[in-house]
Order: sequence, then C-alpha cells, then structure tokens
Amino acid sequence: MSMSGLAMELLNKMSSKFKNAKRIEGLDSNVWIEFTKLAADPSVVNLGQGLPDISLPMYIKEELSKIATTDSLNQYTRGFGHPSLVKALSCLYEKLYQNQINPDKEILVTVGAYGSLFNAIHGLIDEGDEVIIIVPFYDCYEPMVRMAGATPVFVPLRSKPVDGRKWSSSDWTLDPQELASKFNSKTKAIILNTPHNPLGKVYTREELQVIADLCIKYDTLCISDEVYEWLVYAGNKHLKIATFPGMWERTITIGSAGKTFSVTGWKLGWSIGPDHLIKHLQTVQQNTVYTCATPLQEALAHAFWIDIKRMDDPECYFNSLPKELELKRDRMVHLLESIGLKPIVPDGGYFIIADVSLMDADLSDMENNNEPYDYKFVKWMTKNKKLSAIPVSAFCNSETKLQFEKFVRFCFIKKDSTLDAAEEIFKAWSRQKS
Amino acid sequence: MSMSGLAMELLNKMSSKFKNAKRIEGLDSNVWIEFTKLAADPSVVNLGQGLPDISLPMYIKEELSKIATTDSLNQYTRGFGHPSLVKALSCLYEKLYQNQINPDKEILVTVGAYGSLFNAIHGLIDEGDEVIIIVPFYDCYEPMVRMAGATPVFVPLRSKPVDGRKWSSSDWTLDPQELASKFNSKTKAIILNTPHNPLGKVYTREELQVIADLCIKYDTLCISDEVYEWLVYAGNKHLKIATFPGMWERTITIGSAGKTFSVTGWKLGWSIGPDHLIKHLQTVQQNTVYTCATPLQEALAHAFWIDIKRMDDPECYFNSLPKELELKRDRMVHLLESIGLKPIVPDGGYFIIADVSLMDADLSDMENNNEPYDYKFVKWMTKNKKLSAIPVSAFCNSETKLQFEKFVRFCFIKKDSTLDAAEEIFKAWSRQKS
Ligand SMILES: Cc1ncc(COP(=O)(O)O)c(C=O)c1O
Ligand SMILES: Cc1ncc(COP(=O)(O)O)c(C=O)c1O
Repeated sequence: MSMSGLAMELLNKMSSKFKNAKRIEGLDSNVWIEFTKLAADPSVVNLGQGLPDISLPMYIKEELSKIATTDSLNQYTRGFGHPSLVKALSCLYEKLYQNQINPDKEILVTVGAYGSLFNAIHGLIDEGDEVIIIVPFYDCYEPMVRMAGATPVFVPLRSKPVDGRKWSSSDWTLDPQELASKFNSKTKAIILNTPHNPLGKVYTREELQVIADLCIKYDTLCISDEVYEWLVYAGNKHLKIATFPGMWERTITIGSAGKTFSVTGWKLGWSIGPDHLIKHLQTVQQNTVYTCATPLQEALAHAFWIDIKRMDDPECYFNSLPKELELKRDRMVHLLESIGLKPIVPDGGYFIIADVSLMDADLSDMENNNEPYDYKFVKWMTKNKKLSAIPVSAFCNSETKLQFEKFVRFCFIKKDSTLDAAEEIFKAWSRQKS
Repeated sequence: MSMSGLAMELLNKMSSKFKNAKRIEGLDSNVWIEFTKLAADPSVVNLGQGLPDISLPMYIKEELSKIATTDSLNQYTRGFGHPSLVKALSCLYEKLYQNQINPDKEILVTVGAYGSLFNAIHGLIDEGDEVIIIVPFYDCYEPMVRMAGATPVFVPLRSKPVDGRKWSSSDWTLDPQELASKFNSKTKAIILNTPHNPLGKVYTREELQVIADLCIKYDTLCISDEVYEWLVYAGNKHLKIATFPGMWERTITIGSAGKTFSVTGWKLGWSIGPDHLIKHLQTVQQNTVYTCATPLQEALAHAFWIDIKRMDDPECYFNSLPKELELKRDRMVHLLESIGLKPIVPDGGYFIIADVSLMDADLSDMENNNEPYDYKFVKWMTKNKKLSAIPVSAFCNSETKLQFEKFVRFCFIKKDSTLDAAEEIFKAWSRQKS
C-alpha cells in the first residue's frame, strides 16, 4: 500500500499521532542496516559485518537438526532461560568465576548479547543518569543509553606512538586521569568491552583494576560486554572484571552464543550477575519478549555440554577456534602490510582495523559530502573494488568521529577462499597504484 | 554466589545504584512465570499456558531440521526480517488485505507477537499518553504501556444475560457509549485483540466499525493483536480492522508464528502496517535486539510457502488446525457442562473460560488471603487435583479483578490423551462432590 510523497506529507501534517515516541527521536540510523544492504550484492567480498563464513562445528548444527523434530522442544520454555541451558551456563561459568552461580537467579538468557545490553540498560539506567562509554564502542551502546533517557559520557582509547614497531591493540589505552574525570555522583554505570570490538584490545589486569577501583569509589555499576571472551591470541588472557574484589555485586557480564559457537544467526546471549541486579533485567525481559526460542536454547545447551567436558582438550571449540583465527589474523596482518598499510594487530576478537587513507581512492565523486571519510571510502570500495568493510567512525560518538575516520574495520572470521578473494582485490589495487 | 538476607539488606542500603530504573517499578510480577512453575510438576495435567501438545505439522519440523545443517543459514540476517520470510508474509497478507504490501517497509519480523507489541508501544507511545485497553486483556498489555510511562485506560467487555441459552463469547460486548467515553485528545492508541484471549470472542464487522469510527474521530492509532487469526470456528469470520476505510494508515496488525503453526517456542512474530508507523517499530528493534533468529525465519518462510500454495485446500494448516480445534472445543464444552459448569463457548482461539465457584473447592487452607479467588483456586486445583489452568483475573487491571475472579481459563490445544486425563480428573472430582 504505497503512498505518494505528497500524500505522506499531508498525512504527517494531519496526524501528530503518527509520530514516534520521543525516546527514539534521532535513533533511527544504523550502520549494520546501511552497510549490510550495500554488501548484499553477491559479487562483493564481504569483510564487513561479523559474519562467520567458516565451517561451523558439526555438533552444533546436528543438535539443532535433531531437536527440531521433537514436538515439545518447539514450544514455550521458561522465560528467563531454558532450564538445560542455564544449567550448562552455570556449570561453565562456575569454573571461570571459581564460585557458585545460581542458574535461576544469577543468569538470564536473552535475544543475543544485544538483548542483554538492552535489558541491562533499560532495567537499571534512569533518565538523567550518566553512563560512561569508551570510544570506539560497539555501536548500539550509545543509542541504547539515549533511549533510556540517560547521558552517555565518552572517554577515548588513545594510542601511544609506535614509531617503527608493529602497531598493536595494546598500544591503545585509557588515560587513568582522564577516565577518573568522567566519574561523578550521577554516574550510574560504565560499559566495558573486552576483548574489544573494533580494536581487538584485551584489557590487562592493571587496566581492569583502574576501572574497578573507580566503579567502587563512585559506587557505579559495570556492564561488561565479553562476547569475544574465548577469542584471545597467544600472549594474552581474557580476565573477567566481575571476579575482581568488590566487583561481582555491581557487574553484569554479557556473553553471546553467536560469538562462542560462530552461530550469529541464533541470537542467544546471556547476562550473569548478582540476583539483586539480574532480577531487574528479568523484569525487562518479561515485558519485552517474555522468552527466547526453545529449540535453539536446547541445542546450545547440548553444544555447551560437549565442550564443557573437554575444556582442556585442544579440540574443545573454546580452544580450537582462537587457534584457527590466529592464523587468519596473521594472514590479514601480512596482507594489509604488503600493500603498504599499517594495521593495528588485534590481541583478541575477529576484527582488524587499518588506516586506509594511504590507499589510492578517489572519493571526489562520492555524494553526501557530510559523511565521514571512512563512510565514503567503504562505499567507494564496495562499489569500485567489490570489497566491503565497516567504517570505524560508526563506533564513535559525533565528537570523536573525526579522530577515527581514516580507519576501516575488516572481519577475518572467513574461510580461506574468501580471504583469497580479498587478497586478489588488494593486490590488484596496489599494483594499479604503483 | 548466594547472599544472606541480611547481607542483601545491607547492600541495598549501601548502594542506591543497585536499584531498578523507575520505568520498571512494580512491573515484576508475571502470571506465566508463577503458574508455569507450578505446573512444571510432571504429574500435573497442564491446561494452563497456551502450550500446544498436539502433533506439529511434519513439514515445519523437517524444514528446520534441514536448514540447521546449512552454515550460512545460521548467521545474521537482515535486521527487519529475513528476506525470504518478509516476502512470504507479504504474499500471504496481500491476499487477505486485497492490497499490495511492501515486504521491506510495511512488515517487521519480531521476537514473537510479544516483541511486536513491545516495539509498537515503545516506538509510538510517549509518557503522558493514554492507551485504551479492553478488559480482560492479554496480560502484558498493561505493564508494557506502563513501562512506556503512559496511562492505560480500561474498558470492560460486559456479558448480556443468557438465561437458559448456552453462554457464548459473543455475548460479551463493549458498550459503545462507554467505549466512546474513554477517548479524548490524549488517547494515543487502542489495543484490540481479535480473536480474543482469554474469552475467545471474534469481533463482528459492526463491533469493529464502532472502534474504527472512534479511532478516526479521535485520530488515534490501533494496535490490533490478531495472533489467533486462523483459529475461528464455524459461523464466525476473522476480520482485519486495518482493512476498514481510513484504518490502514493508523493500524499496526500483529501476528505470531507460534500461534499460526503451533510452534510457540520459535518466538517469531510480525507487525504489518504503513511505512510511516512501521519505521518507528524498526527503530526500536535496531536498538533492542537488532535481528531475529535466521534458521527459524528461513524454516518459517518455507512453511508459509507450503500453505500459501494450498490455501483453498482443507489440508492447508490454516484450515485444518481450526477444524481439529473445533472438535476439542466442543469436547471441553461438554466436559465442563457435564460437571455442572457453564463455560463461555469461544468462537475463536484455543481457550475456554468457566465460572469455577460452583466447583467444590475448600480454599480455606490457602495462604495469601489477599489473592483473588481464582489465583487461590488454581493453586489449590494444581496441588490437590493435579490439574492446572490460568486465573482470569490475571487478565484484568486491579480495579476489575473482582469482576472476573470466579473465572478460570483452560487451554484446549491438547492431544486426546491429555484431554482424557483432564476428563478423568473432572469426573472423579464431581463424583466426590455428589
Ligand atoms: C561487542 C559486541 N557486543 C554485542 C554484540 C551483539 O551480539 P549478539 O549477536 O549476540 O546480539 C556484538 C556483535 O557483533 C559485539 O561485537
Ligand atoms: C493475545 C496474545 N497476544 C500475543 C501473544 C504472544 O505471542 P508470541 O508467543 O508470538 O510472542 C499471545 C500468546 O499467548 C497471545 O495470546
């Protein structure tokens, strides 16, 4: 039922009732929707969105395939998490926290980590609160905080000079003084993300201690997005801030099935934290979606049990996937270096970012000159080079976009043939340049 | 990490930062969570929650089972709806609306109908708005409206006297004057539910016209929850208020895969409406969950195509399921009558309600005397008779609970053996009585 522009205009004038609620004013743009559409052309090599195209673990697919045929596993389950799944999660995380976790009260299964972020923010953050967000940041943090009527307060990761050395994600750090200056009595929470998207930074014990000390000093919550918790590379270790003294009681830790088992399309995530915080997230859940998909939760529980039983084994997916990805990371590093770029080598996650302003790209034809350089660059590259990526300024608030607009993020959880195709494109491009 | 009551208390005193956001204050109780827990005992015959235990259509299970093995169908898809699913939905609903529906702009796939209700309310309803809710109502409407900071305005369905006749859901109607008195310049929307849960009422053309006229006169939106759209019994027809003149532009129509294909555990739903409203729901989606599960969406699309191609065929699930259910409804009517109750015969949906105060139940032992009669009755029946149901006052605001507290809702989308077991229980109970 299409409507001409004029009719629409009349209608909008006619009825103020068709207007959006104020809470979503200005929150309608979204980088994934825009760039996923661009990359949908099948001739484009897609290193944009974090879409694994590697082979999935057989057992996760097989479990779902089996479960689908059981009638009762296609019906509603417990709203706060399918019983077998919260049990598996509590068993796994008890090992990592070295403490008991109550599966019914201290875990909530959500619609992806995204749903956990939303439940935490909507359940705990009030109008007028301040929430500290570290820049760059996974892009939904800012609009979610704004939708809650709160004020995001940004603090950037800054890079040390690296001179001749390789540039690493660990060169990007918070200035403790600057971070401290952002805390005050209105600060309700800080959102932490380790391993970090898009930088690949894995926060060290010392860095986390600085954050923990401030959270305790200013009595604030910590929302810790740890969806890439298993994806850390040699020489690094993922640490959970919730295990630091005084932090469990004030921390919501968020995980994702999509990232843990490379099934981003399952949209299952979880929040772990103390009863007195999780119960508020549960209230949001029961008034927004009520429950998550049963067959996916049951299959996920089975997959967890398989890997929980072999956690010290190299075949355990928690161990084998980072090994597989480390090779891909190294390949991407070499590839980007070979064409004259200086990538920031990630210590974790499956993204790598590089300053692309050195690439030969004539953006003068690109419309929409108000867009940051990296937006135009990615659109140009997608169209002219058939290679897609994600502009890093999408992970910034408007004031810091300029600082990051020369950077572009490439995803490397890709099968060899995809990386081969990307390599071909880069090499042809750099031959053209020289 | 459990915490003693005292420690908890200290903690709560210590930190106001652990408090819930104001928007969810008082919204933590939920009938499903409470009564589902009660009915979890496997010796209980569960006619409570709308949990189908009939055989599912083979093809829906098989589609999911097949799709699960394709790697790419386990990854992220388009945020506003998997392309093949929105295409199937637009094709199906174009037939019913007798008008074109744009799959990308006029349809949004959500986490169940529940997610659609939330997106619509959160995207369109502002603090201070009024939203009309017809009592009894599917229980999440009220807390969702309150979470948006709006005021629910209740208007009851009232029953005509039926004397000797069978009591039917069509005896329950809105008083047009009373309904009109609830509309004013602050009214942002009315939430309609047809076929109705829990009454089973199927609104007639005349009844819908009264509502449509008021929506147009007061320039309000209509959120039309039509999850039971296919489940109407002989002599009744489901009508879509969005197809009434002047209504398309102001109506969000909501459907559910769980109800359409008896797979409540898939938690997929959809909103259909004009671009100028749907876009606000999309904004909420991209800031709350971002996208729905891909394998389930793909399997659902396949199931839809199978039935879209045979819509005039008695085997089409849209035709065969209501036929199957009508027999079960009739069986439940006879059963309830045979033990001396007077059920309200539903014209649609898969629930039947009856005044249970005539049953012999000694509730004097039940704790929590502040609870409505039906809450106590259902708890008593679950414990003593091993039969569960849902109290109808759970579908009422606090002011109208008294009006409905003698009613209990039974779900009849149950296989014969489950209904046999319920019959045994009822018969033994009534023998005991006489
Ligand atoms: C840092 C971070 N948090 C959360 C998410 C969302 O995860 P999910 O797909 O489980 O909702 C992502 C996905 O890319 C992410 O990178
Ligand atoms: C009237 C009504 N609306 C919405 C829903 C929620 O449907 P879904 O499971 O698709 O979220 C139900 C479920 O029972 C319902 O009865």
